[in-house]
Amino acid sequence: MTHNSFGHLFRTTTFGESHGPAIGCVVDGTPPGITLNPTDIQKYLDQRKPGQSRHTTQRKESDSVEILSGVLDGVTTGTPIGLLIRNEDQRSRDYDDIQDQFRPGHADVTYMMKYGLRDHRGGGRSSARETAMRVASGAIARRVLDHLVDGGVTIRGALVQMGTHVIDRDAWDWGAITTNPFWCPDVRMAATWEMYLDEIRKQGSSVGAVIEVHASNVPEGLGAPVYGKLDADLAAAMMSINAVKGVEIGAGMGAAALRGEENADQMRMQGDKIGFLSNHAGGILGGISNGQDVVARFAVKPTSSILTTVQSVDAKGTDVDVSTKGRHDPCVGIRAVPVGEAMMACVLADHVMRHRAQCG
Amino acid sequence: MTHNSFGHLFRTTTFGESHGPAIGCVVDGTPPGITLNPTDIQKYLDQRKPGQSRHTTQRKESDSVEILSGVLDGVTTGTPIGLLIRNEDQRSRDYDDIQDQFRPGHADVTYMMKYGLRDHRGGGRSSARETAMRVASGAIARRVLDHLVDGGVTIRGALVQMGTHVIDRDAWDWGAITTNPFWCPDVRMAATWEMYLDEIRKQGSSVGAVIEVHASNVPEGLGAPVYGKLDADLAAAMMSINAVKGVEIGAGMGAAALRGEENADQMRMQGDKIGFLSNHAGGILGGISNGQDVVARFAVKPTSSILTTVQSVDAKGTDVDVSTKGRHDPCVGIRAVPVGEAMMACVLADHVMRHRAQCG
Amino acid sequence: MTHNSFGHLFRTTTFGESHGPAIGCVVDGTPPGITLNPTDIQKYLDQRKPGQSRHTTQRKESDSVEILSGVLDGVTTGTPIGLLIRNEDQRSRDYDDIQDQFRPGHADVTYMMKYGLRDHRGGGRSSARETAMRVASGAIARRVLDHLVDGGVTIRGALVQMGTHVIDRDAWDWGAITTNPFWCPDVRMAATWEMYLDEIRKQGSSVGAVIEVHASNVPEGLGAPVYGKLDADLAAAMMSINAVKGVEIGAGMGAAALRGEENADQMRMQGDKIGFLSNHAGGILGGISNGQDVVARFAVKPTSSILTTVQSVDAKGTDVDVSTKGRHDPCVGIRAVPVGEAMMACVLADHVMRHRAQCG
Amino acid sequence: MTHNSFGHLFRTTTFGESHGPAIGCVVDGTPPGITLNPTDIQKYLDQRKPGQSRHTTQRKESDSVEILSGVLDGVTTGTPIGLLIRNEDQRSRDYDDIQDQFRPGHADVTYMMKYGLRDHRGGGRSSARETAMRVASGAIARRVLDHLVDGGVTIRGALVQMGTHVIDRDAWDWGAITTNPFWCPDVRMAATWEMYLDEIRKQGSSVGAVIEVHASNVPEGLGAPVYGKLDADLAAAMMSINAVKGVEIGAGMGAAALRGEENADQMRMQGDKIGFLSNHAGGILGGISNGQDVVARFAVKPTSSILTTVQSVDAKGTDVDVSTKGRHDPCVGIRAVPVGEAMMACVLADHVMRHRAQCG
Repeated sequence: MTHNSFGHLFRTTTFGESHGPAIGCVVDGTPPGITLNPTDIQKYLDQRKPGQSRHTTQRKESDSVEILSGVLDGVTTGTPIGLLIRNEDQRSRDYDDIQDQFRPGHADVTYMMKYGLRDHRGGGRSSARETAMRVASGAIARRVLDHLVDGGVTIRGALVQMGTHVIDRDAWDWGAITTNPFWCPDVRMAATWEMYLDEIRKQGSSVGAVIEVHASNVPEGLGAPVYGKLDADLAAAMMSINAVKGVEIGAGMGAAALRGEENADQMRMQGDKIGFLSNHAGGILGGISNGQDVVARFAVKPTSSILTTVQSVDAKGTDVDVSTKGRHDPCVGIRAVPVGEAMMACVLADHVMRHRAQCG
Repeated sequence: MTHNSFGHLFRTTTFGESHGPAIGCVVDGTPPGITLNPTDIQKYLDQRKPGQSRHTTQRKESDSVEILSGVLDGVTTGTPIGLLIRNEDQRSRDYDDIQDQFRPGHADVTYMMKYGLRDHRGGGRSSARETAMRVASGAIARRVLDHLVDGGVTIRGALVQMGTHVIDRDAWDWGAITTNPFWCPDVRMAATWEMYLDEIRKQGSSVGAVIEVHASNVPEGLGAPVYGKLDADLAAAMMSINAVKGVEIGAGMGAAALRGEENADQMRMQGDKIGFLSNHAGGILGGISNGQDVVARFAVKPTSSILTTVQSVDAKGTDVDVSTKGRHDPCVGIRAVPVGEAMMACVLADHVMRHRAQCG
Repeated sequence: MTHNSFGHLFRTTTFGESHGPAIGCVVDGTPPGITLNPTDIQKYLDQRKPGQSRHTTQRKESDSVEILSGVLDGVTTGTPIGLLIRNEDQRSRDYDDIQDQFRPGHADVTYMMKYGLRDHRGGGRSSARETAMRVASGAIARRVLDHLVDGGVTIRGALVQMGTHVIDRDAWDWGAITTNPFWCPDVRMAATWEMYLDEIRKQGSSVGAVIEVHASNVPEGLGAPVYGKLDADLAAAMMSINAVKGVEIGAGMGAAALRGEENADQMRMQGDKIGFLSNHAGGILGGISNGQDVVARFAVKPTSSILTTVQSVDAKGTDVDVSTKGRHDPCVGIRAVPVGEAMMACVLADHVMRHRAQCG
Repeated sequence: MTHNSFGHLFRTTTFGESHGPAIGCVVDGTPPGITLNPTDIQKYLDQRKPGQSRHTTQRKESDSVEILSGVLDGVTTGTPIGLLIRNEDQRSRDYDDIQDQFRPGHADVTYMMKYGLRDHRGGGRSSARETAMRVASGAIARRVLDHLVDGGVTIRGALVQMGTHVIDRDAWDWGAITTNPFWCPDVRMAATWEMYLDEIRKQGSSVGAVIEVHASNVPEGLGAPVYGKLDADLAAAMMSINAVKGVEIGAGMGAAALRGEENADQMRMQGDKIGFLSNHAGGILGGISNGQDVVARFAVKPTSSILTTVQSVDAKGTDVDVSTKGRHDPCVGIRAVPVGEAMMACVLADHVMRHRAQCG
């Protein structure tokens, strides 16, 4: 992962600012002969796009994707796939007031430190708007996995914590995630979150979240030790998502509190296959997949754009008090779920291809 | 990070197995004109090397490093630095019994899945022995940081949790970490850990840990958004260390439970510099350093090599019960502290160079 | 250079097919704060675009470039620059007849071998149409060089051989290259070529060419030995241009016939600077620039699209005779001149940035 | 290719100076399960090593290679292969006289320009001694090709021009190359060269050469357009060899003088395979292999170390006259033959793996 590209053999390069004319990406390395239509991508973009419930930003973007290359008659040709989404509902004026102010928690101050100038409109390049292209690339990655992996790889994400409210894992129901606006697998918790988030929004505040992504039917043997480990790549992929501050695989930070005999996933033959009796490893041992579900988790900090007034400084070096109006998500973690799924898909597609190269 | 290399401009490639003739690395991209002597590297290797207290493995390795290239008369020439450490105390016989067995929690089974064969002696390439080369490279990275950053960058690591015992942050004293065998910054907790770990070791068990690494005087503006973010690179670097299952920056997973006004680090001018009133961001906003301390944390799972008998299978597909004798660390997290410091140093050196290239 | 990207720190990724909806690229790594307007790019695109004289293809493309990101108020922001050119004058029907035929000399057969399918319309991805994006990226690279190198770097290309007609080097006049449609620095030869190429075109044939590119005021010390040599990167860059079969630096293939004392560029102090008495090295010694003009030369084979009937086979494995109608350049080498200049600019910009990182 | 590494999936990183303690490399990405013994590597090193005839330098190096990792019981494990060769016959004193002088044609002056200091002993890192590790890596690449390509890939190199003497292509006999000390495929020319080179050596002069490398039974479809073209990678690989100033594929620079109908390799079905009636393309169309022999050619300049006195300057900025004593090859091109073969092998192995990843 360098600059604005990620992946080695399945490689995505994105560009575009929140309030520029367009965002886009180039997906390079896709195998040829895979059916791919705009709807295959659009359906995932629609999951991420803003303005779908009162719990997300009211910015209206159709996020309508155009495939510019790499696909002929609905089939990939093996050449790079260029994708484009025109921005539609930029209200750059909203940002005029804070043009010279650094919003705490945002990258305003660090972009200025790094580049000496910045695109202040909607966060510019640091906006979560960029994640639309991750989702688009992830949609292609899923098609690659369908094509290369017998039986396909199923990738599903869920919100498992919102603010201080954590789901009950015993109540986990994948079927529930489409029945509430939060990707919540615990129906009772979904109801709690609804009231909670309404309250947060009315207060002009925001709250963090934890997202968990599962990949099932992952081939054994993915991962290139020791620096191209599958989990190292997942960690980078998840941490590169806007506002993420922590990444866990399997037992995650909780592994520290375990003893060796608790943590080690014991094995027994199940027919002619190796069966694991638990999955603290999150499907990855020594950086290589073991055939169990790959389980990654990441924490998203609360949205930094809040109505509450906070102390800050401006570009001239003057103390100021900042309150962010604009249109924002009270919990950006919600819309991070499809992004996390997409990153999982991209990393797995890349590693399936890398594995074929060396050991296929 | 691909295969066995990491970093872009300050780039390290390692090789070697636990019980092979030697381990080594190539450190490429070092600026010329930096004084570098074997002792600059050896002193950090000595911090990591086994057999220094009863709390770590009793394998005896002098870990004596030889500089093979890239340095002339004690000064770097800008050409690649080759480093070599001969293995000395391999007791490969210890592993004869488990040659065909897959030790739960270890990469035995996944290396076999991936490669169809494996070096069973001491874990082969998946052994933590490889981390000696990370520490060696990190020592060079520190010299690079001294050279390129006015005032140098101070990098310090500490063990903040061992098993279920967490330090008291109010008792944090950097001076304490060299006064106990655990890198513990809380003297009272160090005493607790001593008894606790003796108990664990006598039981033939093991325990996990959390390591925290701080980098001070980090230049502003490091990080290449959006996929070359400083925190994304740190996440990959830390997750690539053996046995790590979670990585956090600043508030980490705990950020999920915060509200926007709690999490955002407010700012006020302090003289002519921007002062932050807190550091939930861990020194990184939008993937770019803000001049505050960069704070990374990672969880190490308990050592998988334990005397306790656990259920497993062997290469022939037979159920077996495994107990690992050998010589092992009851808490590998201890020796992971200098490794975490080294990874921090390498990532920062790389990013300082990348920043110079684009914005210098 | 992998897949569809080239450069390390100044990195370009292109996409698009000859007859798809658009071609485009992402230029990543540009330093911030550089003035850049569409006209800075368009002027170089206009030099390359087809249909400017009877000596090039009559396809009409305005090649009008749109900057989609990375530039705010005419200044680069340091974020990736997305560029887009819509295709306008595709006459895909021209290719219906040869949909299943492999045109000798073209990549038709190898794309089919590699991918199992191909975009037959105008050569698809293998079309020289892709080079428009190289020229666009090269235009940005020139701005980077202006910004980073004191006095700027002057990059100029010329056609030095067309078919069997070689220019007289003693008649070299850089001023002449804009006065004829061939980039010919020898006015008398330009007149010869005019008649010669008319004849070739009328015969439905084509002819090869040699392009020479000079870069002046190149900083000393560019190049990263031993595999990131400046000349190795130039060789890859030039060889990656469509139809190129040979690349030379300085004395080139002719160096083989020289003796040591003839070839070595002797030195004498000229004031306080080192002066070279000749430039057989083409400005590069040991892969590193020495401050002299960097001189690269490359041979372009004759256009493979010719009216003359040639023997071939089709996708069904039947012998066929092929004659290519369409609209083609009788000497593609002419339009390769600005492409060669662009590649030189991109490689130099990349190396200036790499040098700053390590030795700046 | 960056800094001191080349290749993407089959990747080699080298280190070491001419007069340092050792040279070495790490070969990463090798498939597991390939038999590999030190003799598989040593036999190619022996072809390159100095002091084998009066026509090459009299430096005595056994070039005895040690495999440090990545191989267990004579079989590759898939982990990185570390290789080491200790330097033995450094006569660094030979270079004391010229410590501060820049030898024309050598990289002395450019290393000083780049790094501000240099290892003057035997050229340091810029010495052709580094090519031993290319040959070692190439030997592994050949084993990879044997393993991955049905029937293996045959790679053979020859010297086709020495100074002004060019071989007669009609007299080409691959059997002859081992019967003379020049890798000359034309027995009569070999006799001429013998006298010619004796004369050159006695005069204290040197002469250039052209090497041609053929790869047979290359799989169809290798090459990743448009910047990862097989020929672009070969161009970089060959140009990165010490003293190379020109690289050609197939018809090479001569393609410029051809007309379309002469250059295009016509096709006819030969049984159920496509047969080409000529090979001006050198086996590569649009950057992708077509199943014909891949033919690359490169020119090596005359050795810059000559007894003849030439004008130069020293590090203090004083004009000096330089005559290089030491032990040198009168025609370094001879020893470049196995190096060219090795680079071909490495590039092909890399591309076979890349092709498997995307299209396998």
